[in-house]
Amino acid sequence: MRILVCNDDGITAPGLRALIEVAQEFGTVVVVAPDRPQSGMGHAVSIGVPLRLYPSRQFGDIQAWACSGTPADCVKLATGVLKEKPDLLLSGINHGANFSISVFYSGTLSAAIEGAFEGIPSVGFSLLNYSMEADFTAAQAIVREIILILQAHPFPPHIPLNVNIPNLPLSEIKGIRLSRQARGRFIEQFEERIDPYGQPYYWMAGRFESTDPHPDTDLWALERGYVSVCPLLTDLTAHEYLHHWEPIHR
Amino acid sequence: MRILVCNDDGITAPGLRALIEVAQEFGTVVVVAPDRPQSGMGHAVSIGVPLRLYPSRQFGDIQAWACSGTPADCVKLATGVLKEKPDLLLSGINHGANFSISVFYSGTLSAAIEGAFEGIPSVGFSLLNYSMEADFTAAQAIVREIILILQAHPFPPHIPLNVNIPNLPLSEIKGIRLSRQARGRFIEQFEERIDPYGQPYYWMAGRFESTDPHPDTDLWALERGYVSVCPLLTDLTAHEYLHHWEPIHR
Repeated sequence: MRILVCNDDGITAPGLRALIEVAQEFGTVVVVAPDRPQSGMGHAVSIGVPLRLYPSRQFGDIQAWACSGTPADCVKLATGVLKEKPDLLLSGINHGANFSISVFYSGTLSAAIEGAFEGIPSVGFSLLNYSMEADFTAAQAIVREIILILQAHPFPPHIPLNVNIPNLPLSEIKGIRLSRQARGRFIEQFEERIDPYGQPYYWMAGRFESTDPHPDTDLWALERGYVSVCPLLTDLTAHEYLHHWEPIHR
Repeated sequence: MRILVCNDDGITAPGLRALIEVAQEFGTVVVVAPDRPQSGMGHAVSIGVPLRLYPSRQFGDIQAWACSGTPADCVKLATGVLKEKPDLLLSGINHGANFSISVFYSGTLSAAIEGAFEGIPSVGFSLLNYSMEADFTAAQAIVREIILILQAHPFPPHIPLNVNIPNLPLSEIKGIRLSRQARGRFIEQFEERIDPYGQPYYWMAGRFESTDPHPDTDLWALERGYVSVCPLLTDLTAHEYLHHWEPIHR
């Protein structure tokens, strides 16, 4: 099995190394990861900007490239330039959560969605710990378990998976649940500061708020110590509204 | 009615001015647009980077700001810093198409999706002409018509709309159809070049390919001279796969 490993925290992130270590147990690994952190890049692609691929030796014998572009660019370059036709794409392990609407902002998931566009079974992994010092031991065991489950019960390649892992020791993880994206929103809080030239600038912060406490959500699973696995769409159509009006002909 | 106007081609784009002109007929307009082109930015947000809002006088008496961030950031700053609570968000008019999976890559649509996250009825408009010299006359008439239809038949605010307008004179536009996102993919073609230091770099190009010619798709509508209106989801869950496995308990 050929496995393409990507992420959005960049090629030096410990979460990427943790994912590569598990991926190696299942097949031949190729790594294409951004040359710098790309968190929050959503599904951005580089238009009008040339792209670079720098060979990297930091994972021993594993073929690895640092890419100057976004997480989605990494997948495009892997398939389009390196001519990789992986049997599986793994993205992450992200340093931080990607539940609810975070999937729209997440570079980790955009790599998995881009993989699904290419017909590659794709999974994005996120650990609910934002620290670069995070302990990925339990997360690695979960990645291994999920790859084994996928081998027994594969999803179609156009359905990428969003896996969030609670920040707990393995013995405290309660199980693994297929979950839907909880409804919720970020309440942005901007802090205005004045620069040395007297001009304002803004730091964006915010907290996530959800009023969707149902047991079928990713948020519910994570808050109770379960791993959440959310199958994702690559069709954004709200099908139930396609007959909201009759077609208008002139 | 208060109307927030955004785009991804930047505050100087003719498509933005065209949209503002129509929006003014319906209410008080506030503009927050990127200070430079942001095509292909997807739903990127600026993390770890301070944001700027520069007042702009280029639309006469209309309140307008150029934002240093992405299209999604523009919406966050409009609601979070400027304290705008618009009744309607209009994004565009994009210089170029945003049908099929382009919605994932589109900054124009990310502004509309971000508006939907905030509970604002939101519409992204795209004209199938990539030129900065494009004629927006027919597109303006379509924008006007769609705002009127929405006033009579509103969608819930969590359903943003993706409107694509064929590049035709108004007399040749056949009508307006609610359409689903056509299945399709971009076939990337990378051109490798060598820089003056002997190092390779890559230009990403590509063509869109679809094998989904059904009359309910955006692609079908546009190819036959119809305006396509695709209602969008803000929940990416593939609900039909939520019972693909049983929950695993430890």
